[in-house]
Amino acid sequence: MHIKDVKSKDIIKFIETFAPPELAIEGDNIGLQVGGNLNRDIEKIGIALDPSLSVVKKAKNKGVDFLFTHHPILKDPIRTFTGVMYEKLKILMENEIILYSAHTNLDICKNGLNDALADLYHLKDVKYLYDNGLGRLGIFNGTFEDILNITKEYITKNPTVVNAEIVNNKNNNSKNNNKKDLKVAILSGYGLSQKSINYVSKFADVYISGDLTHHSKILAEELGLCVIDGGHYGTEVYGLKLFKKYIEDYLNVELISLDF
Amino acid sequence: MHIKDVKSKDIIKFIETFAPPELAIEGDNIGLQVGGNLNRDIEKIGIALDPSLSVVKKAKNKGVDFLFTHHPILKDPIRTFTGVMYEKLKILMENEIILYSAHTNLDICKNGLNDALADLYHLKDVKYLYDNGLGRLGIFNGTFEDILNITKEYITKNPTVVNAEIVNNKNNNSKNNNKKDLKVAILSGYGLSQKSINYVSKFADVYISGDLTHHSKILAEELGLCVIDGGHYGTEVYGLKLFKKYIEDYLNVELISLDF
Amino acid sequence: MHIKDVKSKDIIKFIETFAPPELAIEGDNIGLQVGGNLNRDIEKIGIALDPSLSVVKKAKNKGVDFLFTHHPILKDPIRTFTGVMYEKLKILMENEIILYSAHTNLDICKNGLNDALADLYHLKDVKYLYDNGLGRLGIFNGTFEDILNITKEYITKNPTVVNAEIVNNKNNNSKNNNKKDLKVAILSGYGLSQKSINYVSKFADVYISGDLTHHSKILAEELGLCVIDGGHYGTEVYGLKLFKKYIEDYLNVELISLDF
Amino acid sequence: MHIKDVKSKDIIKFIETFAPPELAIEGDNIGLQVGGNLNRDIEKIGIALDPSLSVVKKAKNKGVDFLFTHHPILKDPIRTFTGVMYEKLKILMENEIILYSAHTNLDICKNGLNDALADLYHLKDVKYLYDNGLGRLGIFNGTFEDILNITKEYITKNPTVVNAEIVNNKNNNSKNNNKKDLKVAILSGYGLSQKSINYVSKFADVYISGDLTHHSKILAEELGLCVIDGGHYGTEVYGLKLFKKYIEDYLNVELISLDF
Amino acid sequence: MHIKDVKSKDIIKFIETFAPPELAIEGDNIGLQVGGNLNRDIEKIGIALDPSLSVVKKAKNKGVDFLFTHHPILKDPIRTFTGVMYEKLKILMENEIILYSAHTNLDICKNGLNDALADLYHLKDVKYLYDNGLGRLGIFNGTFEDILNITKEYITKNPTVVNAEIVNNKNNNSKNNNKKDLKVAILSGYGLSQKSINYVSKFADVYISGDLTHHSKILAEELGLCVIDGGHYGTEVYGLKLFKKYIEDYLNVELISLDF
Amino acid sequence: MHIKDVKSKDIIKFIETFAPPELAIEGDNIGLQVGGNLNRDIEKIGIALDPSLSVVKKAKNKGVDFLFTHHPILKDPIRTFTGVMYEKLKILMENEIILYSAHTNLDICKNGLNDALADLYHLKDVKYLYDNGLGRLGIFNGTFEDILNITKEYITKNPTVVNAEIVNNKNNNSKNNNKKDLKVAILSGYGLSQKSINYVSKFADVYISGDLTHHSKILAEELGLCVIDGGHYGTEVYGLKLFKKYIEDYLNVELISLDF
Ligand SMILES: [Fe+2]
Ligand SMILES: [Fe+2]
Ligand SMILES: [Fe+2]
Ligand SMILES: [Fe+2]
Ligand SMILES: [Fe+2]
Ligand SMILES: [Fe+2]
Repeated sequence: MHIKDVKSKDIIKFIETFAPPELAIEGDNIGLQVGGNLNRDIEKIGIALDPSLSVVKKAKNKGVDFLFTHHPILKDPIRTFTGVMYEKLKILMENEIILYSAHTNLDICKNGLNDALADLYHLKDVKYLYDNGLGRLGIFNGTFEDILNITKEYITKNPTVVNAEIVNNKNNNSKNNNKKDLKVAILSGYGLSQKSINYVSKFADVYISGDLTHHSKILAEELGLCVIDGGHYGTEVYGLKLFKKYIEDYLNVELISLDF
Repeated sequence: MHIKDVKSKDIIKFIETFAPPELAIEGDNIGLQVGGNLNRDIEKIGIALDPSLSVVKKAKNKGVDFLFTHHPILKDPIRTFTGVMYEKLKILMENEIILYSAHTNLDICKNGLNDALADLYHLKDVKYLYDNGLGRLGIFNGTFEDILNITKEYITKNPTVVNAEIVNNKNNNSKNNNKKDLKVAILSGYGLSQKSINYVSKFADVYISGDLTHHSKILAEELGLCVIDGGHYGTEVYGLKLFKKYIEDYLNVELISLDF
Repeated sequence: MHIKDVKSKDIIKFIETFAPPELAIEGDNIGLQVGGNLNRDIEKIGIALDPSLSVVKKAKNKGVDFLFTHHPILKDPIRTFTGVMYEKLKILMENEIILYSAHTNLDICKNGLNDALADLYHLKDVKYLYDNGLGRLGIFNGTFEDILNITKEYITKNPTVVNAEIVNNKNNNSKNNNKKDLKVAILSGYGLSQKSINYVSKFADVYISGDLTHHSKILAEELGLCVIDGGHYGTEVYGLKLFKKYIEDYLNVELISLDF
Repeated sequence: MHIKDVKSKDIIKFIETFAPPELAIEGDNIGLQVGGNLNRDIEKIGIALDPSLSVVKKAKNKGVDFLFTHHPILKDPIRTFTGVMYEKLKILMENEIILYSAHTNLDICKNGLNDALADLYHLKDVKYLYDNGLGRLGIFNGTFEDILNITKEYITKNPTVVNAEIVNNKNNNSKNNNKKDLKVAILSGYGLSQKSINYVSKFADVYISGDLTHHSKILAEELGLCVIDGGHYGTEVYGLKLFKKYIEDYLNVELISLDF
Repeated sequence: MHIKDVKSKDIIKFIETFAPPELAIEGDNIGLQVGGNLNRDIEKIGIALDPSLSVVKKAKNKGVDFLFTHHPILKDPIRTFTGVMYEKLKILMENEIILYSAHTNLDICKNGLNDALADLYHLKDVKYLYDNGLGRLGIFNGTFEDILNITKEYITKNPTVVNAEIVNNKNNNSKNNNKKDLKVAILSGYGLSQKSINYVSKFADVYISGDLTHHSKILAEELGLCVIDGGHYGTEVYGLKLFKKYIEDYLNVELISLDF
Repeated sequence: MHIKDVKSKDIIKFIETFAPPELAIEGDNIGLQVGGNLNRDIEKIGIALDPSLSVVKKAKNKGVDFLFTHHPILKDPIRTFTGVMYEKLKILMENEIILYSAHTNLDICKNGLNDALADLYHLKDVKYLYDNGLGRLGIFNGTFEDILNITKEYITKNPTVVNAEIVNNKNNNSKNNNKKDLKVAILSGYGLSQKSINYVSKFADVYISGDLTHHSKILAEELGLCVIDGGHYGTEVYGLKLFKKYIEDYLNVELISLDF
């Protein structure tokens, strides 16, 4: 891979056109994370879900000098620089690797991570799940089995499922070859908080998201909401791969995947 | 099952001797949850991890009139009574089922949920993991494989494991038939927050707890902490079964298990 | 009394048309308090100022299955259900009595509790006392004695009065048979906080409201504001009786008064 | 009245020995309120419950140069000086009247306002009602009628009473000429908040205090607590008159009562 | 000096037309500070930067009965009146001196303190420095030496300067007789907080304001921002003198300067 | 300079014995700031008041690999790493320079920055100025002129002085060659906040500290407190030089001064 005359600021410009920073929810740590001279020519661009230590090490080893990640390097701020953060920053700074993140703006934007999932499930009449643009809510025409098969093929091999029988019953009670319109909600990443499950249960038959924990599972059972936990990783990497292609097409270079 | 002259207040007295309320961490909603005349004779005692709607329904169907759960009915308070909460309260009140919870006090107390885990893994030199008494930290003499086998047999069939190779390497580098002293931390229920993982990584080789999510997994990988997610359910139900026996021995009656 | 085919949701629909929920001030606990199936046919409707234990018991004894109260069941939320709250909820739930409240929305709305008072005193040029719609401010044409007589006849037999002499002096100094335009403010319920008295003193000659306490009385004296404490009960029940009639006319049934 | 060589600091010294400032509850605005040179000789000492505008005017007219009040001049702080506060401060400052308050420290201290009430009702086995020293709880030997008579004679002519019948029934059920030990709680001033009523209902048969409002009355009824509202004024002025005598005896001068 | 029929309210009206109160930033303690009858005829008007004790004493000694100050009498509110505040209030109230302040509204308004500085430096293309109207940002055509000379002549004899060399270098590198367009920011009073310096460094070559402290100086050095500390006093009094003239012209009287 | 077998952890151990971390006031960002392997041998040790960009650059240029500063690198935490912070961290990390700070613990500890000032002025009967150990209060035997001369010789050439005349008058009124006991308070660094001045005015005749601003100056004038502003830099560097010697004596090496 070699890029002719591409600078950090050019890449950032494309990302910010695709996923406008002003879409991000308040308090999200998006944008330039670590850097640096944005006018330097970039040789290799890396992409990852997380700016983890292993991703940062791989970026260095592969000669990446611009690293895009979906998750920011920090949620909570720090004022001393030791341990793992020291290690990460040292590698990035010594090797002058620019780190840039688009997080909830990439979740929310057109053709972003949530739109990608809505497309994957062929949802119709798609709306925002939340007023701030996070998640999608739409109509799935098919059986619950169909939804599960798509999830297993594209998101994760072994999804956790809650209340499948409730949706199956709906399907069985409908005519027309078990085909039925199901209201499906999706939210890439961590969407299975108790608050979200409570909210989504008012609109959806099926909710696909990630990071299901014990209390959320109990709540979903109580509320009779069918939940598919496709994993935080799985529900985000699907759209991230598509975003990778958007960048590649725009810059006419190949990006280096570092954790997917 | 039949209990001679046992009243709610007698059962509560035993529970509070076993798991003193003053051990609970601040803000935990422990003690009497729903009730009621504590002087009435009790016919049947139920026990469950969660006061979920299905547990409450089973309790009614089986004629339970005193229900003990580890998790409280509510973490955040409410001021209207509708939906699932209405359903639960209605069943409990109509059938005069007393609901009582011992939560972090049962996690912390002698022979409580964390002591049960420490015993299960035959930990030695056992200390509190946190100053408030939550969790345990001790020495395990054996291989990582041994730990995993105990987990699979008693906690959950398919635990999630992070950084197994790091501990395996330690074992391989030690002499004496791969037997080695490993520092093991355990915390029943939800212990795999990023904050906990960060804290535990300073003391332990292996951390067994529940509810691992994406960002916690990444952090554990970065910190080189070996984590075994035995599930919130699995790590709590093990000790809860033992607590069930303590009550049964004391009252000389059989308790009705409702979700384990 | 017997109601043909009236369901809870029909009654609620009328109430919410009369006193739109969106009028309520932020944080007010209005709407459905306890319930339940809103599609069940309702036999008897009760109405009260407070969902007190004695009101709830009377409601049960009189066969009420829909109870409307002006005051909500709780201001501050709870997470255990014991004592008086247990008693109230048990009676309501066992007997499937729906409890519904319209509080500040009923104070504020057209023909609501404050409009009722404004009409009672024949105020002219009536405006909101507060920007949020609470209270009324208008012109009373008459003597202070006239105001007091209306209060004694319709609100409470023995109102507490502060600074009567100040308004009397104004009357005496005016010509025309002591008849004079007085600026009168009214606020149903608890309106005699120090903050309110301070605020009202800038606009009004006379302030009629409820729940006068020591420090408020001293402040009114200092500010020279004439205050009539007609009682929290008195200033609210007057309009509540009219609201009772609105429901009766609409549904063509008689409501059962439970505390007035 | 004439005082030989008495300075403000001498009076303050006596007050602070009687009602030590460190007894006051946190955030209470006690001590020197307005002043001034504390070394000047004092001619006349005034005493009042409230530093109201009318009290301040009377103080000036009667030549008072040291004014003691139970209530502080302000609870919430200010940063502009206009209106009534301007008037009060102007009079106090122009006439060099020192204003000094002992509030919760005088409520709490030995022989203070609450002890005065405990003595009035001849309570036995007297304890603090609250851990911070506010209020008193003791045993009254007699009928409820006896309590009411004392209240009417010494506190207020027309006390408001809630749940009298509950205590009367207790009396009637006891032998020995209707004489019975009643648990009586007293709290001078504003003690009839919902929080206090809830708290006191756990210990006392009868609760005597001031400033009863609608919601507190309903709560007392529900909890079956007998409440006597003797008025904020009445329950404080009784002890304040005794405190006046203590000062007079100590300084051998007569104090000028300004609002009682 | 003698004023014909000028009342406080007339002076206030002029001030509030010149410096509208609604321009003030939230939480600023502007407007009437101490007073009083605003309908009384005013004999002498005083003006000062600070309502300090010495200013208040001078005001009294010179017979001032209306005192205007830029700084309010208090930023944080109080609830006892002792010490220096007692002294100030006593003098003001005894002598019925009205105290009135226009603070950030006078900083912000047209021809106010910041506009005065923008004019002094002949800035062109002047904009607000902050969105709320505080400060000014404009183009200075000349050398850094020119800026310094104006500062020394009109603001303060010995300004503190940081990073002069950076701006000098810019001048030297430009042609045209060292004349160059410099971006100059000004903020009257306390403008040299770290937050402000950080903000201003993104727009300006030179920043003129007051109250430079150690950490701010270090930050300015790091950011390469040239800072001139003209003093809180110096940067405010310059415009205050002009405001004095505006009042004098309007009322056709001479004001008494009390601290400048 | 060359150090035999000295590691970062050895230097840190000495610093923490001299200035125990537990002395620091809550929330102070002390200790290891940036690093790193603490077991590496150290060649050169640098010392500075501030970890400013120019100090960091000098440290690199002089081959420093352990840098001690009094001020921490950050007060408020951050979560992106750009601009000046990027530059500083990059230099420190690339060159593996350990940065370590002792701030309020060095102010407070025995022989720390405040003790150094107390010794400089030969104060007697020295106590903590604040309960937390910050500042010193003691007796100076001499004239105000003596204090000023010491300040000019050792702290700063041109100190700002407020209310000198008040202390001078005290001196002149005392006998014994103008020698008099003066109560002197000192506080290294930023001690001239309005809050501090108010507090110190109750104990001291003279207050020596740094960072005087306009409003503090006015307050000191009003309170009649004599203030000497010796500068934040001056009042801290005096003791820092002594601390440098302590390290040099202990490690038997010369430290490199970077900003003093
Ligand atoms: Fe995510
Ligand atoms: Fe749990
Ligand atoms: Fe009300
Ligand atoms: Fe009181
Ligand atoms: Fe200012
Ligand atoms: Fe400092």
